[in-house]
Amino acid sequence: MKNYRLALIGFGNVNQGLAEILRDQKDFLAEAYGVSFTIVGVSALSKGSIYQPDGFRASELLEAVQRDGNLERVAAAQRGWDALALITNSNAEIVVEASYTDLQTGQPAISHVRRALESGKHVVTANKGPVALCYAELAELARQNSRLFGVEGTVMSGTPAILLGREVLKSARLRKVEGILNGTTNYILTNMELGVSYEDALAEAQKQGYAEADPTGDVEGFDAAGKAVILSQLLFDRAIGMVEVERTGISRLTLEDIQQAKQAGERWKLIASLEEKDGKLRARVSPIRLPLSHPLAGVSGATNAITYETQALGRVTLIGPGAGRQQTGFAMLTDLLSIHNAQSMR
Amino acid sequence: MKNYRLALIGFGNVNQGLAEILRDQKDFLAEAYGVSFTIVGVSALSKGSIYQPDGFRASELLEAVQRDGNLERVAAAQRGWDALALITNSNAEIVVEASYTDLQTGQPAISHVRRALESGKHVVTANKGPVALCYAELAELARQNSRLFGVEGTVMSGTPAILLGREVLKSARLRKVEGILNGTTNYILTNMELGVSYEDALAEAQKQGYAEADPTGDVEGFDAAGKAVILSQLLFDRAIGMVEVERTGISRLTLEDIQQAKQAGERWKLIASLEEKDGKLRARVSPIRLPLSHPLAGVSGATNAITYETQALGRVTLIGPGAGRQQTGFAMLTDLLSIHNAQSMR
Repeated sequence: MKNYRLALIGFGNVNQGLAEILRDQKDFLAEAYGVSFTIVGVSALSKGSIYQPDGFRASELLEAVQRDGNLERVAAAQRGWDALALITNSNAEIVVEASYTDLQTGQPAISHVRRALESGKHVVTANKGPVALCYAELAELARQNSRLFGVEGTVMSGTPAILLGREVLKSARLRKVEGILNGTTNYILTNMELGVSYEDALAEAQKQGYAEADPTGDVEGFDAAGKAVILSQLLFDRAIGMVEVERTGISRLTLEDIQQAKQAGERWKLIASLEEKDGKLRARVSPIRLPLSHPLAGVSGATNAITYETQALGRVTLIGPGAGRQQTGFAMLTDLLSIHNAQSMR
Repeated sequence: MKNYRLALIGFGNVNQGLAEILRDQKDFLAEAYGVSFTIVGVSALSKGSIYQPDGFRASELLEAVQRDGNLERVAAAQRGWDALALITNSNAEIVVEASYTDLQTGQPAISHVRRALESGKHVVTANKGPVALCYAELAELARQNSRLFGVEGTVMSGTPAILLGREVLKSARLRKVEGILNGTTNYILTNMELGVSYEDALAEAQKQGYAEADPTGDVEGFDAAGKAVILSQLLFDRAIGMVEVERTGISRLTLEDIQQAKQAGERWKLIASLEEKDGKLRARVSPIRLPLSHPLAGVSGATNAITYETQALGRVTLIGPGAGRQQTGFAMLTDLLSIHNAQSMR
């Protein structure tokens, strides 16, 4: 049985989701993979920072947050370390980075990832910032330190879109990808097709917790563009910036547009696409009218999906959740198991 | 650069598809995976049997079949070996089994697989017979001989349904799978929705080469049931027989049934399903009326699809081709690369 020590940066939905999985699937992970994971430290801005070299039980961390809203009453050998101190000084072998996402600067996550790799620790993250803004540098740093940098959770949460496109379908020769990569806008468009106005659909998305108070990031396509930048890097090995993504949001789509498409047997979807042509990669986010026969046309609500166009197989489509606490926690688990796999083979 | 020697059993669509990929993707495979594959022998009932210890060029085999319809004019060190002789006597490290499928007896494919594993050769196959009828025995034989038995092509051709369900989503805890696993019947149902009668839709499927002259295997659900048996074994570790699959075909569906569903906002699909409940596995093939919101409802024509219901992620759906020469050839390549992967780690 191999055990790995984890340091969690941030303890919001993603890392609580991971902690729940580690609590509930302990026996399964031991039996099926011969592996266990021990959380030795947590550093979270609003919930406090604790470290215990021989580890916490996942359940006690979850119960504390449930009960107190923070980690202050959890017994620990060390308290108050900030993220960089925990990353540097702890005995963790893997850092699970889940601080907040900033697509402009990528901070503070970039510093966390850099420090972790430099201290010889593997990193797994669902944070789009570091991956969209400086994946190449961080991947090279990981390589130099013989460590892994897992990023499955940055696109479509735990739905294994990156693993499928990057590893499984690599030999099929990827030509193009098209995806519904933002659940909020797809939820809004699905509701508009039922006759709800853009404003009401957006308000409902906010009420359901899909959209933020300032919905710009979703409805103007920035979130989807960030994911296009990530996929450009991971699936096509091309480093592009956010500004290189042609971007149009859904805020100007009217109920009339939606109904016109419906009458023509088509459906508006906010599509992020990447296509290689004549040695160039075109990256684009924009609302597109898809015929109902297109595999992405039937994807409704907050669900995400991606269609890989390959030379060997033609179109292969993967549909699944694009967000959610346990779902993103599961993406972290996928990366943790990949690290375990790679270590077992050394 | 690692090279593997292949013996091909059968040289119909599947193995010709593989030969085309090996011819066209030689440089890519060398560069991306550091691997090459050499065909040292082919044994095919109608096209002849040839063996050359240092290998043939894939292109010369394809050109011969194109030109002569057989392999008789290809220069070879040895001719006329039957499949078992080629498997036993050749210097191949991997046997690519693509003889015809017999879901009743599994023969002659079962004998080929057995002999190959007993002679210390890896096996990859797209043949449903051996996998549906005696996977457990053959997998154990492979284990005893430290060889791999790759079966990706038996369900959904090169669309990586088995790899996704068995490896990638294993940690998400599979509860249920539902699939459109027979392209012929889905093609017929799609056409019936356009108003074509069952008889005419079947005739068109035969004309397009989807359905055989005797369509029983497809339309009565035997083909889909065979795939359910395979998935039962591969995804749920349960050996069940064909008779344990509750099976209803589509031949009794009328245009009226189809139209009634349409009016109710639903769609008939021939669904193969496997579900674990109270420790039991229920296997079923039958036409089901799906709401249009179901991820399988939008899958049209000869395309295949599978929905995995998991504890961690909820529903994840994979859509892709279910048949085709290059597509099934690609499934063989997927398994060949898995063997290469596993060998590289030893």
